[in-house]
Amino acid sequence: MATDTRERIISASAELFRRQGYAGTGIKQIVAAAQAPFGSIYHHFPGGKEQIGAETIRVSGAFYGLLIDSVIDPAPDLLAGVRDFFAGAAVHLRESDYADACPVATVALEVASTNEVLRAATEEVFESWLGAFCERLREAGIDAASARVISLQILSLLEGAFILCRTTRSTEALDAAGDAAVAAVAAGLRTEAPEHGR
Amino acid sequence: MATDTRERIISASAELFRRQGYAGTGIKQIVAAAQAPFGSIYHHFPGGKEQIGAETIRVSGAFYGLLIDSVIDPAPDLLAGVRDFFAGAAVHLRESDYADACPVATVALEVASTNEVLRAATEEVFESWLGAFCERLREAGIDAASARVISLQILSLLEGAFILCRTTRSTEALDAAGDAAVAAVAAGLRTEAPEHGR
Repeated sequence: MATDTRERIISASAELFRRQGYAGTGIKQIVAAAQAPFGSIYHHFPGGKEQIGAETIRVSGAFYGLLIDSVIDPAPDLLAGVRDFFAGAAVHLRESDYADACPVATVALEVASTNEVLRAATEEVFESWLGAFCERLREAGIDAASARVISLQILSLLEGAFILCRTTRSTEALDAAGDAAVAAVAAGLRTEAPEHGR
Repeated sequence: MATDTRERIISASAELFRRQGYAGTGIKQIVAAAQAPFGSIYHHFPGGKEQIGAETIRVSGAFYGLLIDSVIDPAPDLLAGVRDFFAGAAVHLRESDYADACPVATVALEVASTNEVLRAATEEVFESWLGAFCERLREAGIDAASARVISLQILSLLEGAFILCRTTRSTEALDAAGDAAVAAVAAGLRTEAPEHGR
């Protein structure tokens, strides 16, 4: 089915980009991984690899954004939610043999100075995640400016720890980063909404 | 001169890898940027692109490690030094039009699951930087276990903020990450060495 082929192409590309980057992934490799006929690539993606790249970034980004909701919202409070998010990322990273971390970061670094279409797509995704963290911080009583700063700190910690964890094949950095993220949120809660404090 | 050619090859590779990654950089591009005769590549680097990659990672890593000393050591205290380090990184990123951030991260993410030789080189570099931060935290009176955790937090914040800054073409994330890094060091100083606390 056509739609199914299109989805398989995006799904295979997401996996390949995350593991080995955009430049290191060829169209032939995507076709093979997606078990798609070669012609179907240009039928579904007349813009070729760049169009596949931009759509994959947006689809993976939206999916990962849902993770923020699904992990943080059921937690008893925001601090527990942030802690669970980093702990869950560590479990997933170990289970995937240190391959599946951020679906966007590898491509983001490759294209930031070289491809404006893909850079814009990665910016859109990071801003959507920052927005999701911000929303939860605002709901916990933190003002907008502080919520933006704390969201940037959480996402920087997460992305940086992913690099260190994949490189060192250990989740030590995610554990440390999770502690710092919880501390940043706790400091925000103490300042802005003492009734929500630790 | 032979040594000069070799250095130009490493220097050109460092710049190309940082801006566009390892997979996206071809030998021909390195030769052109280094203004080196094509044959000289395999004379100096019989292991080809992989050998150039590993040596470039180590040389860039050592150079960047010296930055840690040169920025943090002259500062009046460790907190000021950490703040200066993030502020200096932000200035350099703006001045390079958001291209020159971490010399190792792009390659680290590309190769973590695909090239063991290069993964090992990036791990070596990250561990040397962690060691440099650890040493300064220890000198300020923080115990070894806490110094390791805080070093991981500082480096995660720096690396993650670099991704966000290059992607969004703004230094907002480095400012926020610098605040969190200073807070992490301050918390360590308060716990372990009250006489150094704020």
